[in-house]
Amino acid sequence: MTRWPIPQAMKQALEAAQAAAGAGEVPVGAVVVKGDTVIAVAANATRVPPDPTGHAEIRALRDAAAKLGDERLTGCDLYVTLEPCAMCAGAISHARIARLYYAASDPKGGAVEHGTRVFEHKQCLHRPEVYAGMGEEEAAKLLRTFFKDRR
Amino acid sequence: MTRWPIPQAMKQALEAAQAAAGAGEVPVGAVVVKGDTVIAVAANATRVPPDPTGHAEIRALRDAAAKLGDERLTGCDLYVTLEPCAMCAGAISHARIARLYYAASDPKGGAVEHGTRVFEHKQCLHRPEVYAGMGEEEAAKLLRTFFKDRR
Repeated sequence: MTRWPIPQAMKQALEAAQAAAGAGEVPVGAVVVKGDTVIAVAANATRVPPDPTGHAEIRALRDAAAKLGDERLTGCDLYVTLEPCAMCAGAISHARIARLYYAASDPKGGAVEHGTRVFEHKQCLHRPEVYAGMGEEEAAKLLRTFFKDRR
Repeated sequence: MTRWPIPQAMKQALEAAQAAAGAGEVPVGAVVVKGDTVIAVAANATRVPPDPTGHAEIRALRDAAAKLGDERLTGCDLYVTLEPCAMCAGAISHARIARLYYAASDPKGGAVEHGTRVFEHKQCLHRPEVYAGMGEEEAAKLLRTFFKDRR
């Protein structure tokens, strides 16, 4: 079977996720790009340093805002290996991300196509374009392996 | 008219909000306490440094987790001057905050009693006890004055 190639930014997000697993963190990775330029790459890191907000998306958005010198990442896109939770979807909206690409869906914790569906509320001030599924097998496999190894 | 006194932690959150206004940031403040001990005090800071996730709640939770050396703030309470948004409500849940006290309601951006109502979804893994309204006049006045002065 021939599959569409995974975009370079999603490959980098998957690599970041893989590295997180090696560090004992839940393997999720995120990349912020502006056009063809990678602005920030981050992995999930909630254990070291201890940070309940240390999801890959939050860390990538913070880093990108610091680098670009603007709290609004207008024109930037976010690639992440897992469907964002409510916290991260809210942050994506605050950051004015133009396009959100995520790999695996997350029925348990996702808040884009599941649960709170943050972007679908009238209250949501900025909605990114959303694309899902590219790289989902790779992203889901990283998570499955991680949790299987920890049982 | 006699009013109930505002709890000390909410007073500190209001002071942090006031300080934020002086720095040109939207005046919202948050305090994390454990029993009678103040663990972290933070104000909204999204402009300096530029950080789309720099809401008072996120900054207080991150600081508290760093200080306590644990991503889970079990047994801690959060006082905040404004109803948390979806991002912050998600973070409060991740952080396992025991009790959430907020002053003013936020029909536009709040996600506790408005909009996405993050804690009411089956998907939400941890729900704090929620108390609202104490200090609401003071908190709302800070916000009204801030936005009036900027018009």
